[in-house]
Amino acid sequence: MTADKLLFTPGPLTTSRTVKEAMLHDLGSRDAAFIERVRDVRRRLVSLAGAEATHTAVIVQGSGTFAIEAVLTSVVPRGGKLAVVVNGAYGARIVQIARVAGIEVAPVVFAEDALPDPEAVARALDPGVSHVAVVHCETTTGMINPVAAIAALARARGCQVIVDAMSSFGAVPLDLVDVDYLVSSANKCIEGVPGFAFALARTAALRQTEGWARSLALDLHAQWRGLEDSGQFRFTPPTHALLAFHQALLELEAEGGVAGRAERYRGNRDLVVAGLRGLGVATYLAPELAGYIITSFRYPAGPAFAFAGFYEKLSARGFVIYPGKVSRTDCFRIGHIGRIGAAESAALVAAVGEVLAEMGVRPGPSETPFRRLGIRRSGIWAG
Amino acid sequence: MTADKLLFTPGPLTTSRTVKEAMLHDLGSRDAAFIERVRDVRRRLVSLAGAEATHTAVIVQGSGTFAIEAVLTSVVPRGGKLAVVVNGAYGARIVQIARVAGIEVAPVVFAEDALPDPEAVARALDPGVSHVAVVHCETTTGMINPVAAIAALARARGCQVIVDAMSSFGAVPLDLVDVDYLVSSANKCIEGVPGFAFALARTAALRQTEGWARSLALDLHAQWRGLEDSGQFRFTPPTHALLAFHQALLELEAEGGVAGRAERYRGNRDLVVAGLRGLGVATYLAPELAGYIITSFRYPAGPAFAFAGFYEKLSARGFVIYPGKVSRTDCFRIGHIGRIGAAESAALVAAVGEVLAEMGVRPGPSETPFRRLGIRRSGIWAG
Repeated sequence: MTADKLLFTPGPLTTSRTVKEAMLHDLGSRDAAFIERVRDVRRRLVSLAGAEATHTAVIVQGSGTFAIEAVLTSVVPRGGKLAVVVNGAYGARIVQIARVAGIEVAPVVFAEDALPDPEAVARALDPGVSHVAVVHCETTTGMINPVAAIAALARARGCQVIVDAMSSFGAVPLDLVDVDYLVSSANKCIEGVPGFAFALARTAALRQTEGWARSLALDLHAQWRGLEDSGQFRFTPPTHALLAFHQALLELEAEGGVAGRAERYRGNRDLVVAGLRGLGVATYLAPELAGYIITSFRYPAGPAFAFAGFYEKLSARGFVIYPGKVSRTDCFRIGHIGRIGAAESAALVAAVGEVLAEMGVRPGPSETPFRRLGIRRSGIWAG
Repeated sequence: MTADKLLFTPGPLTTSRTVKEAMLHDLGSRDAAFIERVRDVRRRLVSLAGAEATHTAVIVQGSGTFAIEAVLTSVVPRGGKLAVVVNGAYGARIVQIARVAGIEVAPVVFAEDALPDPEAVARALDPGVSHVAVVHCETTTGMINPVAAIAALARARGCQVIVDAMSSFGAVPLDLVDVDYLVSSANKCIEGVPGFAFALARTAALRQTEGWARSLALDLHAQWRGLEDSGQFRFTPPTHALLAFHQALLELEAEGGVAGRAERYRGNRDLVVAGLRGLGVATYLAPELAGYIITSFRYPAGPAFAFAGFYEKLSARGFVIYPGKVSRTDCFRIGHIGRIGAAESAALVAAVGEVLAEMGVRPGPSETPFRRLGIRRSGIWAG
């Protein structure tokens, strides 16, 4: 196999060599060495959130969606009702999970290109709503939703708050004071490999949920009890992915934790957005709404651009990007997370320039929301 | 980290260096290279079962239990009824999964130390039963259940048949002619690393189940459609574990497929059982009931033996064994699967001898079921 392509996606990501090398060991899942590693991972996750006094970490096998489903179907009681803030595909997925599981759900829908208004969310919470779910970084667009404000208002109304922080945890600060359950995944900002996800659960809330789960495999309370009581998983864990994740947590700390990682990702974002803007490729979101995890770009105007060809030509040059997911606008996405920095981001911009030229896509300003909104292009990201 | 201990467990297992090294690459989960690898894995799995004409492979993220739950909750319709052959903890777990999921379930219970009688299973199937589930190698004891006979009788009665072949698939032959769904896992006889499991589903049966699932994450039909239509997983797959598994499948073929692997495992079993018998440690099952995947051994008689100390002393010597799971008899288990052979099995026997001597456990025949059954010790495994 030749050198790996660089992954500018929302995950799986490019990881460090040392993270991958941590997987060159076979540990018994019930052996003391592994149990100790899992305990340390759980301790470090809670510490990363600054929530040692209130929250506990529960690791769930599978992808991030598995952990979202585990939380929803384990902590919303029968007779409960879930309100979901929806301004993109990942909010919509929470609604879908709840519907399939037979949980009563009330979507609170906002446009994909505007911040959800916390007051409007609060007004939508009828007295029957027991839980409110919201996505932190809506990976559809890259928007960072106002989770803290929504959580505070929801909690003040007596609701428990569930945050999908899949693509943000570890690189975007979030205070868990009003968050009962936060869900994230191994292969996002902590830069591990895929294989499991995790919930940070308010221990006092989780403790109430014994026997509520609608599934054995995805029973959050039982999983927590297993990890607390024996340090073991109830069912075979992805031992190698957990070893990689432990190493990834050490590397996150060495980089300066959330602040250090945010700085690198922000630098990647600035480089890529400025570079593509220089090539006439506009972002979907107005700059003040955009995060630094992933950016949605509008297709360049004109008939010469086709996504499939663009993707293939970039891939052939060693750069993997991601398709769009915005509802009514043709976009592609570029992720800024993973073991990539300024050099890799600059190389991507250069490759995009080559590919657009090869495709005959002529640089030039296209219709962008900034123009429509009257926002100057020399906004906060001007490099 | 020092050299890894050898894992004599039912998984996670000792894997080859080359299987682990296949994980030193980051691939995009939606990139062509990965999609092609997944297609090849699915093709090889169906081929390994000799079921190219009838079955399709559906990969499910998580542990083996996740895939069992995915099958049960996706293919037993509302109003359906599941009969489960139970002669150990893994049969009992199927019952538990069904109960938590609200599926009507009828356990058909047999003793842990005797073969389930297929005719008795058939007699227990009332006309309301739509599905029959049975474990192939009951890892509790190591027994290989008469799955083919049970499946044939159940199918003749119009039931669909679900087989938990978690710890047997790849090393114990099984004809899928009467099996509608077989479930196994990456980190068993195929000798991959943990992170996912899979079902081999009769395509004609699976096709009927659209919309039946009780879960989004564990929706078998939707997972299959995703893999068929785009070659992609609906939700992030464990890319590194899948690369390892692909390599593991190549190594299984190089070893001579199921027959070749069975031969090595049988050799491991023969060495360990003969060796431990020589040390006065008896097997739980009568020889003619035992498989070659894992063996349950009775605790040596006398007060000098304690499992915790035995385990620790073996672990300190580099050998990880497994606790027992038989209901009313104190046992420990030794697995014969994974990248271990005669040298490693002999080394384990030597270590057990040292440890028992150190503990002051005196070798000598203890009360065994063979004596009770009148079976001579110089049975089929006499080395």
